[in-house]
Amino acid sequence: MKGIFIIADGLGGRPTDLGGNTCLEAAETPYLDALATRGALGLVDPIGPGIRPGSDTAHLSLLGYDPYAVYTGRGVFECLGIGMDVQAGDICFRANFASVEPFGEDLRLLDRRAGRINEGQKELEDALRSLSIPGVEIEFLASTQHRGALRIRGEGLSRFISETDPHEAGVLLHRSRPTKDEPGAEKTAELINQITQQSYELLRDLPLNQKRIADGKPPANVLLLRGAADYPVLPSIESITGARGAVISGGALYRGVAEACGMDFIPVEGATGGLDTDITAKAEAILETLKDYDYVFCHLKGTDNAGHDKNAADKKAFIERMDAELFKVLIERVDWESTHLAFTGDHCTPIDFGDHTVDPVPVLFVGPNVPRDPGTTFGERVAGQGGLGRFSGRVLPMLLGYCNWAPKFGS
Amino acid sequence: MKGIFIIADGLGGRPTDLGGNTCLEAAETPYLDALATRGALGLVDPIGPGIRPGSDTAHLSLLGYDPYAVYTGRGVFECLGIGMDVQAGDICFRANFASVEPFGEDLRLLDRRAGRINEGQKELEDALRSLSIPGVEIEFLASTQHRGALRIRGEGLSRFISETDPHEAGVLLHRSRPTKDEPGAEKTAELINQITQQSYELLRDLPLNQKRIADGKPPANVLLLRGAADYPVLPSIESITGARGAVISGGALYRGVAEACGMDFIPVEGATGGLDTDITAKAEAILETLKDYDYVFCHLKGTDNAGHDKNAADKKAFIERMDAELFKVLIERVDWESTHLAFTGDHCTPIDFGDHTVDPVPVLFVGPNVPRDPGTTFGERVAGQGGLGRFSGRVLPMLLGYCNWAPKFGS
Repeated sequence: MKGIFIIADGLGGRPTDLGGNTCLEAAETPYLDALATRGALGLVDPIGPGIRPGSDTAHLSLLGYDPYAVYTGRGVFECLGIGMDVQAGDICFRANFASVEPFGEDLRLLDRRAGRINEGQKELEDALRSLSIPGVEIEFLASTQHRGALRIRGEGLSRFISETDPHEAGVLLHRSRPTKDEPGAEKTAELINQITQQSYELLRDLPLNQKRIADGKPPANVLLLRGAADYPVLPSIESITGARGAVISGGALYRGVAEACGMDFIPVEGATGGLDTDITAKAEAILETLKDYDYVFCHLKGTDNAGHDKNAADKKAFIERMDAELFKVLIERVDWESTHLAFTGDHCTPIDFGDHTVDPVPVLFVGPNVPRDPGTTFGERVAGQGGLGRFSGRVLPMLLGYCNWAPKFGS
Repeated sequence: MKGIFIIADGLGGRPTDLGGNTCLEAAETPYLDALATRGALGLVDPIGPGIRPGSDTAHLSLLGYDPYAVYTGRGVFECLGIGMDVQAGDICFRANFASVEPFGEDLRLLDRRAGRINEGQKELEDALRSLSIPGVEIEFLASTQHRGALRIRGEGLSRFISETDPHEAGVLLHRSRPTKDEPGAEKTAELINQITQQSYELLRDLPLNQKRIADGKPPANVLLLRGAADYPVLPSIESITGARGAVISGGALYRGVAEACGMDFIPVEGATGGLDTDITAKAEAILETLKDYDYVFCHLKGTDNAGHDKNAADKKAFIERMDAELFKVLIERVDWESTHLAFTGDHCTPIDFGDHTVDPVPVLFVGPNVPRDPGTTFGERVAGQGGLGRFSGRVLPMLLGYCNWAPKFGS
């Protein structure tokens, strides 16, 4: 038995999306509806009822872990997802290129995202290779726009430190401080303050920034660091179930979470982690990867991007494109006698709110071991009538269970 | 208010059982359907969504306990269920009669179940009364076929030891070793190795085994030990709720779990723990026992046996026999104005897979305090549409709750 687990990020919506219908309900999805007709629906609270999920915590929970037990922070998944090697003892951060100006001994924040800078990140990354503190190994990689990830490696570091990002323009950058009386926290906070200052000195006078200033754009002249995290202790899904899995994702975070759970990363050309991603390429990659693995986890990000942008038309269109370019292919080419599929979102990102909400997310299971529901469409309200009821997280363990991969607890 | 809690072991199934229907859906069950018409349905994850239950852990959970907190291993329930006295500090094991041959200083496994020996167990049990190690009290009792249970009692014993059963014919019996650096683990492992060797010396030359060898059958010449467990600390259901309960069960394990929860065991002649059990006798015993107790827990095993044997006809027939010999009697003779009933399984045992699966199990509640569903049958799919939704474990506390026996948490 093979398993296909598809998450459309921020899939769920609200009646306010489109005149009483959610984007998912309003979308024309004949292939998804055909899968719903063959399968069973339910509602999943990604972490638990009334808990508003982050993307990282929701993914951990849907993949079968208790995020309250294992989540250490987002930084580690950003580093993993960007392709860095992360080991126990490392401390990882989400990083932003930002604009600051000197203010006495301090730095004052002008723009948290350096005008959402979208060019020259390589020059910034190269300059930051000179970050240097004795006894500590520092690695920084830029990802998309103003985003990047930073890892520090050394003896006796701690994640229990505050961030430097004040989250507000016009105020001084925070100095990182220990947030817990733990060995190494004081030292790590001081390191982060030094790295912040060094990043300013290394980036300040770059030709790129001179040009940006001349063009009236905010310079990318400092690294803002947040989400300090160390490597979480996750038993791999293979060690728990015996099933070998792979991840297909354009977004770094999702790749990072999946790799931390022991999945192999399958690169797909054209998978951008955005609305413009090549869904057809991802569908082909799912089919190809299933030949070598017991299950594939495929993440699509466009739904969430459109939700955050409060763009109902884009969200609906992306769902319709998933229908035509992914679900159509799966219906036609998967061996449905020996394959189970689960499809859901990691949270709702309704149009009106433009961010994650607590609402449960519709989920669909299809395959020979799944009892069929009477319903013939897929959406929020019909899922509330679904035969699988409402449950919390653990969609991948349920999927692997239908594939008979689950370990027995007790005897 | 009186409560009746019936578990048909491995009740749930899959669409693959019988051409799109589960055995439960396919069975003709007019009396069960009549109860469903008067009651409410739901789906229960015996332990939690996506968790594949063992019988022991599932029963603990359905009876109201957190198996992750209280489960120590199966051995203790086997010993309790076979009627042994078990106290805090004792270490209990599941035991198999097996066939071995000497191999140098070691023993090599020939048959884990001594050809599923089905006669002469009393002679074996008598011989094993001579097991003797200074400072330790050893008790062994045979149960059915090749099965038995062993309890050791003494100072400073530990359950953190590995089993001797290699689970594979042709290889050497394992030597038990400590699995945790805990006081007593080394000593207990050594004890188990001595008991294993002694069992071989005591059984090897018995007339029963000489005859089995002469007949070309595998001798029952050693005890294989596994499932080391100590006595779990369970507050009794009576101490939690005030309700006094009794258990009716042919299977030793279920009796053992229920006794550990404080229920009294009601022996029923003809209750075999198999497909041939006398269901009528159990129905009569339920009615009789309800006169003296607040609730009765009755376990039937035949559904699970048929599931493990991948025999859909037997499973369906057993469900139909339960309908005619148990539910008919209950409908006709229970005082339904003052009684609540809950009926479910401890897990699914689908025909195609032949073992426990993660799928949720249909559950039925009937009684004056239960809101009626529109449905008129009982089965997996209709339960997915049931008014009780989907929940995890704790069916007995819900039943006692309808009977107004539940304690208040908080004020």
